[in-house]
Amino acid sequence: MIKEKVSILFQPSGRRGEIESGKTVLAAAQELGVPIESLCGGKVSCGKCKVRIDLSPLEKGDWVELRLSSFSAEEERLIEEGERKAGFRLACAAQLYSDALVFVPEESRGVQQVIRKEAREIAIELNPAVKAFYAELPPPTLHEPTADFERLLRVLDQSFGLRNLTIDFQALRLLPHQLREADWKATAMVWMDREILDLQHGKVEDYYGAAVDIGTTTVAAYICNLRTGRVVSTGSMMNPQVAYGEDVMSRISYTMGNPGEGLKRLQEAIIQGLNGLIQNAAQAAGISLRQVLEMTVVGNTAMHHIFLGIDPHSLGVSPFPPAAHHSQNIKARDLGLKIHPAAYVHVLPIEAGFVGADNVGVLISETPYHKEEMALTIDIGTNGELVLGNRKKLLSSSCATGPALEGAHLRFGMRAAPGAIERVRIDPETLEVRYRVIGQDRWSDECIPEVIQARGICGSGIIEVVAEMFRAGVVEKSGRINGNLSTPRLRKIEKGYEFVIAWARETALGQDITVSTSDVRAVQLAKGALYSGAKIMMKQLGVNRLDKVVLAGGFGSYVDPERAMILGLFPDCDLKEVISVGNAAGDGARIALLNRNKREEADRVAREVEYIELTVYPDFTMEFAEAMAFPHMKDPFPHLEGILKK
Amino acid sequence: MIKEKVSILFQPSGRRGEIESGKTVLAAAQELGVPIESLCGGKVSCGKCKVRIDLSPLEKGDWVELRLSSFSAEEERLIEEGERKAGFRLACAAQLYSDALVFVPEESRGVQQVIRKEAREIAIELNPAVKAFYAELPPPTLHEPTADFERLLRVLDQSFGLRNLTIDFQALRLLPHQLREADWKATAMVWMDREILDLQHGKVEDYYGAAVDIGTTTVAAYICNLRTGRVVSTGSMMNPQVAYGEDVMSRISYTMGNPGEGLKRLQEAIIQGLNGLIQNAAQAAGISLRQVLEMTVVGNTAMHHIFLGIDPHSLGVSPFPPAAHHSQNIKARDLGLKIHPAAYVHVLPIEAGFVGADNVGVLISETPYHKEEMALTIDIGTNGELVLGNRKKLLSSSCATGPALEGAHLRFGMRAAPGAIERVRIDPETLEVRYRVIGQDRWSDECIPEVIQARGICGSGIIEVVAEMFRAGVVEKSGRINGNLSTPRLRKIEKGYEFVIAWARETALGQDITVSTSDVRAVQLAKGALYSGAKIMMKQLGVNRLDKVVLAGGFGSYVDPERAMILGLFPDCDLKEVISVGNAAGDGARIALLNRNKREEADRVAREVEYIELTVYPDFTMEFAEAMAFPHMKDPFPHLEGILKK
Repeated sequence: MIKEKVSILFQPSGRRGEIESGKTVLAAAQELGVPIESLCGGKVSCGKCKVRIDLSPLEKGDWVELRLSSFSAEEERLIEEGERKAGFRLACAAQLYSDALVFVPEESRGVQQVIRKEAREIAIELNPAVKAFYAELPPPTLHEPTADFERLLRVLDQSFGLRNLTIDFQALRLLPHQLREADWKATAMVWMDREILDLQHGKVEDYYGAAVDIGTTTVAAYICNLRTGRVVSTGSMMNPQVAYGEDVMSRISYTMGNPGEGLKRLQEAIIQGLNGLIQNAAQAAGISLRQVLEMTVVGNTAMHHIFLGIDPHSLGVSPFPPAAHHSQNIKARDLGLKIHPAAYVHVLPIEAGFVGADNVGVLISETPYHKEEMALTIDIGTNGELVLGNRKKLLSSSCATGPALEGAHLRFGMRAAPGAIERVRIDPETLEVRYRVIGQDRWSDECIPEVIQARGICGSGIIEVVAEMFRAGVVEKSGRINGNLSTPRLRKIEKGYEFVIAWARETALGQDITVSTSDVRAVQLAKGALYSGAKIMMKQLGVNRLDKVVLAGGFGSYVDPERAMILGLFPDCDLKEVISVGNAAGDGARIALLNRNKREEADRVAREVEYIELTVYPDFTMEFAEAMAFPHMKDPFPHLEGILKK
Repeated sequence: MIKEKVSILFQPSGRRGEIESGKTVLAAAQELGVPIESLCGGKVSCGKCKVRIDLSPLEKGDWVELRLSSFSAEEERLIEEGERKAGFRLACAAQLYSDALVFVPEESRGVQQVIRKEAREIAIELNPAVKAFYAELPPPTLHEPTADFERLLRVLDQSFGLRNLTIDFQALRLLPHQLREADWKATAMVWMDREILDLQHGKVEDYYGAAVDIGTTTVAAYICNLRTGRVVSTGSMMNPQVAYGEDVMSRISYTMGNPGEGLKRLQEAIIQGLNGLIQNAAQAAGISLRQVLEMTVVGNTAMHHIFLGIDPHSLGVSPFPPAAHHSQNIKARDLGLKIHPAAYVHVLPIEAGFVGADNVGVLISETPYHKEEMALTIDIGTNGELVLGNRKKLLSSSCATGPALEGAHLRFGMRAAPGAIERVRIDPETLEVRYRVIGQDRWSDECIPEVIQARGICGSGIIEVVAEMFRAGVVEKSGRINGNLSTPRLRKIEKGYEFVIAWARETALGQDITVSTSDVRAVQLAKGALYSGAKIMMKQLGVNRLDKVVLAGGFGSYVDPERAMILGLFPDCDLKEVISVGNAAGDGARIALLNRNKREEADRVAREVEYIELTVYPDFTMEFAEAMAFPHMKDPFPHLEGILKK
């Protein structure tokens, strides 16, 4: 049966919509505001608009057959056999006759996603796991023909007090040649004062390591000079696994639905992606991959498992235990990572099935376990991870916030990219709206409508939009949109109402960008989960007020603390004490890279933090229901007084 | 230029000779007594006589072009593309028009080589590096969702006191699945109380290890049950590297002549050979390769380096330092060995460039460093390794004995195989000879000539033959053959004389098997090297008599101590104290496999033994010259009195 309308979901942007059956993917993308590269303008000749088309998970959860126009002669020419088998088509040639999921690879994307994972300036005591030791060796003679390795060990002992060193077997293979090439003057790269990874010609001072943060959506890599501690290059990319599922659960499902192969594909995707990312970052800094002698990795538990090739199956079923908590040290070559082949990859420890190495990264970066103040750390991504406590005790928990706070699954949601609305103000009197989009310096009321080119609302934007709608009375405490207001921005729709944020003439979509009752509902679910999680943890710890709220994650840095509190994303706190720390997980990876003592600290804290499973608490449902209200059904917010008029 | 006669060298038998140009390889083999399988009798139809034909190193050291008859249609059919590229031909089809080196692979050999590396019964205290720990784990719950790995660690700590364990990353990958499959009852295989290599279903009691002795010529593997210490299966094979060079030096030259590729080929040859050997041995014992959880390896320094993929170049040039002395632990999978992929390969330490892990194996098997008696240990192979000393001090040295004592490079020399003369008696009055060949129970004078089918003289045989010739007065103290004797067995030849051991009618060759002046000379060079080495070591240590002589090596076990002393292979010693210990190097590998404390002992003793380079001693040349005489030019042999009449 050929449908009249088909539903299409674009990845990684998360944009979705209905289009007329028979339209090309490119036309659909243009209609929905998904930028796809198209140099030839859809003439099926440049081959720039390659996309991977797959079955779509319908909203009702059924899977249908994928129906597309057949492969054209031009596509034969422009798409290689391997790509063709993997499901690649030209967006301008493939016509859709069924629902579909379309993955737009990085190189086919018209606008680059803005990835907000820049490295912060943080002070880290330098004590890397890999250190360089310069040694001058007396050459062997017939009277003193001691072997190369022991000859080197003797000097490393005499000069630096290093004892009981082993050597990587590949380094041993090269040792005789390298020592002679270097005329017996060389630098030994030693890991943890324990293992020689490599011998390099002459005196080597600068050598490097990579700190990597594998997010469900974005991946960031920081290449650091291990002598100076400086970040010499930063790279980031979409997690290529996005093509296999938007969130953690859908990727776990993918591995379960494709036993063996599925996990392999996901792992290869991230390994290959990382290889490209690090190669580019290294190239930008003018260093070779052999100079990168260690890598530290953080990521949530599922990303951690898939990265290491561990079946994440048990993370998908209760009681969700991970395979291991401890940090792991694995040779880069064993994982297929193309840095120095003898380098170790240090993967930070895991707290629990849903509180991963990324959260441990946040902890060693923020060190709440050293402080007196009662702090709530919120790392908001597709999952929200909460840590509450101080030097006496730390609790952690995880809650399913859904993708709304990342801008996905909203009518006009999108990820942070040029054209995304991220700042909004609504006049409580006139209900007039002004906003600013990513990539524009000016607010909407300072431009002529045609230059704004708004495309949607991103995650930090939706917080502001709903908070402002609430403050202006458009949205009520219960989350309903007040249908009695008199403004042309308010419209009745099938389910509830919608409120226009940007008029069609201000957008790149040719239609109004609106927020609907169901969009507000998605935000309520997310914030209700975070708030009720925090509340249960506070009860558990016996505290009734927070000294500090720390917002972590690329998203966290862009959230306006005041508006987050207006919505009740977290319990009341002095607004001066609500701070954004950016990509603290990535900072943690850098800290562990530059200071090996912090690895022990990470292993210790990962075991000391007490994970609590929110859903087993009997009052969870009630807490969740109460926390759905803006800012809360019952709880007082003294620090919002004077900000909220009503 | 086509020669009338071409010279041909067969490997691994070491037989060589001249044949008429244009003869087939099979005809040449038959002429020279090299057994090649030929079911169809040379009709180019069975394909059993595949051999690899290569350029020959001429005696003058030049390399000439290889000229063969062209590839026939039958060979097209019977030889696969890959083999063809590797130089394989059918022996019955390929005609030789130039000198050539012909390698006869194991499956094409008409008679299987007798490999004398059976495992001795030795008492070894059991303390293997890999141990099995059975654990029953409580399954995770929502209230106690600790990770699988830490759940296992907890039980291993509580039940067995194991702490700070790590886990092989591949084992970690399988852990979640394996624990659930096994219903939380499983056996952890732990290496050195340090690393979990594998988790196996239920309670596993029997698990295995392999001890491997990589000789230049032969390779032996002993699969042992690590619970009982018993050898459950033994396998041996020719070292497949023989195809690339007969002795250590020619293999080192091969790697130098083929940079990169040469080492790779030699390493692949031994790794693939070992995989086949161990697979067969495991199969014979009814165990799977995944049950083999460790391997220990001994071998001389060059075999050690090539096995590990270390360029042996520096072993080929003065001052001959090895790459490393220390023992190494390398994952089997990293070396391409197909036992359990997480298993370690423990390679025993190296004493010096020419005293390798095989000698260390002999040492931990014989433990002269624990004894009061002054013992000389001689491990005779293509190289001779000597260790002299007692618990106070040990010296080691190495001397080039040449291949004579392995039966190679003699006119009728051959390796130990059926038809090889290994026992000889010569009547001093009549000069009549009686002998016994391998594979026959009876002496030659007890059979009719036609059933003897002698093919040549093996290494232990040549010692007896020359010793008996000396005792009977056929050979003089100086090594010359006495031309004045009146016996039909004595004949003048171009260079000196030859003495008939077996008449043509008693042989499989259709010609007399003789010992010539130059054969005696080869034995003199070998024994002179051993004796003078021992002498210099005794001077160095300040001792003038030996309490004990230990003959090690597969060859050592077959040498008759009395006749070895008659020839002066070693200084005078009470004959009751001259003992053969068989393949003590292989015993050492087994000891290290079954008792991890012995590995530390091996590392210690390898560094404590003082290696002395004989050639740097000023009196070496004179000592060598004097030691060429039978049994010695000057030294007394009180223990030979009554044995030697003259």
